[in-house]
Amino acid sequence: MSPVLELARALIHLPSVTPEDHGCQALIAERLVQMDFRVESMPFGEVSNFWARRGIEPPLVCLVGHTDVVPPGPYELWTSDPFDPVIRDGRLYGRGAADMKGALAAMVVAVESFVAAHPDHPGSIACLLTSDEEGPAVNGTAKVIERLQRRGELIDYAIVGEPSSIEQLGDSIKHGRRGSLTGFLAIHGKQGHVAYPERAKNPFHASVQALAALCAEVWDQGNEYFPPTSFQIANLSMGTGADNVIPGRLDAQFNLRFSTAIDPDTIKRRICAILDQGDFEYEIAWRLSGLPFLTPIGTLIEATRAAIREVCGTEPDLSTGGGTSDGRFIAPTGAQVVEVGPVNATIHQVDEWIAVDELERLPRLYQRILERLLLGC
Amino acid sequence: MSPVLELARALIHLPSVTPEDHGCQALIAERLVQMDFRVESMPFGEVSNFWARRGIEPPLVCLVGHTDVVPPGPYELWTSDPFDPVIRDGRLYGRGAADMKGALAAMVVAVESFVAAHPDHPGSIACLLTSDEEGPAVNGTAKVIERLQRRGELIDYAIVGEPSSIEQLGDSIKHGRRGSLTGFLAIHGKQGHVAYPERAKNPFHASVQALAALCAEVWDQGNEYFPPTSFQIANLSMGTGADNVIPGRLDAQFNLRFSTAIDPDTIKRRICAILDQGDFEYEIAWRLSGLPFLTPIGTLIEATRAAIREVCGTEPDLSTGGGTSDGRFIAPTGAQVVEVGPVNATIHQVDEWIAVDELERLPRLYQRILERLLLGC
Repeated sequence: MSPVLELARALIHLPSVTPEDHGCQALIAERLVQMDFRVESMPFGEVSNFWARRGIEPPLVCLVGHTDVVPPGPYELWTSDPFDPVIRDGRLYGRGAADMKGALAAMVVAVESFVAAHPDHPGSIACLLTSDEEGPAVNGTAKVIERLQRRGELIDYAIVGEPSSIEQLGDSIKHGRRGSLTGFLAIHGKQGHVAYPERAKNPFHASVQALAALCAEVWDQGNEYFPPTSFQIANLSMGTGADNVIPGRLDAQFNLRFSTAIDPDTIKRRICAILDQGDFEYEIAWRLSGLPFLTPIGTLIEATRAAIREVCGTEPDLSTGGGTSDGRFIAPTGAQVVEVGPVNATIHQVDEWIAVDELERLPRLYQRILERLLLGC
Repeated sequence: MSPVLELARALIHLPSVTPEDHGCQALIAERLVQMDFRVESMPFGEVSNFWARRGIEPPLVCLVGHTDVVPPGPYELWTSDPFDPVIRDGRLYGRGAADMKGALAAMVVAVESFVAAHPDHPGSIACLLTSDEEGPAVNGTAKVIERLQRRGELIDYAIVGEPSSIEQLGDSIKHGRRGSLTGFLAIHGKQGHVAYPERAKNPFHASVQALAALCAEVWDQGNEYFPPTSFQIANLSMGTGADNVIPGRLDAQFNLRFSTAIDPDTIKRRICAILDQGDFEYEIAWRLSGLPFLTPIGTLIEATRAAIREVCGTEPDLSTGGGTSDGRFIAPTGAQVVEVGPVNATIHQVDEWIAVDELERLPRLYQRILERLLLGC
């Protein structure tokens, strides 16, 4: 069995459901220490994180990942135990196989191979791991980066092992993500009996034009790298359950995925301006889950593209679509950030898998990116 | 203590919360039997009803009422026990004092006085009581009327003892009520991740224009007797609770109070026509709680007005406003129906009361209506 397959299986075998690390980081740390990495444990709350570094010179190339996985859901829906990795038909099955224990194993094997070949490499290699990427992500990568920034330790290039590929390894990489802003809107009316509407104020009737305007608003046109900002009402609730009561309050929760063509303050101002046109009282609270980030085409993207061409024989698409990732915490420090990893078709699903041949090609891909960034070849 | 006050107290003392009658009807039946009424018990399900009649000739004047009361709510909010009637400051306090045990007592005393004076009166007097007016009202007045219709027993004039007065006894009577139609609307979209709105369909976004159109629709202009039909969304719900999921379904429950200027089938057709203009799938179910009814100005209203002028010294307003009442079940048989009773300011509230002087004037009011209808004087 290949080293990457062996390590991926060992990691999958540990049921590290967010925020549990369940020994995954110790397994990886042990391998890094063997290569003279200095491994710093940085737990926050119940979240396990570590920061490992080899070398003190710039540039600093950081491999970024998470050891936690989403829950497997009902075991009986799985063909085999989600935490007992099994190979069937050239696929390695198990929770985390694609997101992202396969990539973690590949990163470790890539670094081992790189260090063995270039023990005195220029620059530095780091590894940042958390056990809370799938959860609230408050005590994970964000806190580690904050700590690093306070002591002036800056990442130049971050390679995030998220499953960025769509149909085959290397067909797509992510070089940015949209931001996410959630609004909690309460619209106040006046409760009353439906038989006497003139004595009450229905908060939905009062605000429906404003809500329609929010749904219809064109927030921006997007830009070269981002699709237009989107607005979605995710939750709505109003009413007492009775059909003869005009309710006094409507609650709506909405989310925007926004591009770099707009900023959160502008969004908030425009939403309030639309709401202010209506004849109703409201309250609004906000949660900013992440700012958008974008790594322009440059050293990191070129190195990644070249490595993919070489190892996979394909030309990757550049994408900023999809959900958020921990890249959002690293990009604001000025680092170039790219997400490159296996096919994401089965992530968060039952019978998650990674193709064994792609898993075995992945260490070479990460190693070639490291070589291009640190050795220039 | 006056007979009406005594009987009102005895009735309030019986905690007849819907659908419990708790002996109220037996108390009244006993008095009616004394006057040679033939009292028929007509229980349906857990609901007690009776139909009592004196005389076989037309016209048939029916006194209509209910012995059930709404729950008192938390006892500690009441100044005195809701089922232990107490007089304070000229007011009789207790659950049902105004809605409508005071009126029931007054009706009994009125009939006693009328029969004593005119033992061989022309026409007939009836009394229709139920213990489920405040509840679902399925096994109450509606079923009794159905039974009467089957045997061809027709009410000419129905006097419902509901608390119709607003500030003082006789200032307002109701001669009709709006209809009530409830719609249960499910709008279907397609669930998905907020990061990929193009792969999902938000049922609120898809339907908001149609919902706005429903809220803005002018259903009719009302007419001489009715305010315009009103439409109110009473309940709305959508969402999984998560802010990153576009929900697949929106549920809305709405209610229309409609006038005689429109009919339920027209309303349904117009609502569906508005919904059909949108690009979404929906399902809709209906509950018709009552058709509107109206008693035009004629014998009954004139008799009631004249009696009020005489007994209360006021000219009553005619109203069709407010909620539904059991009059809706009687009017469709062709009967003239009027609701006339005490002040409704405290009904369904804690510390419900009726003014003692108004309670004591009420038997005379009902007696004078009977005299005008049956004796023409």
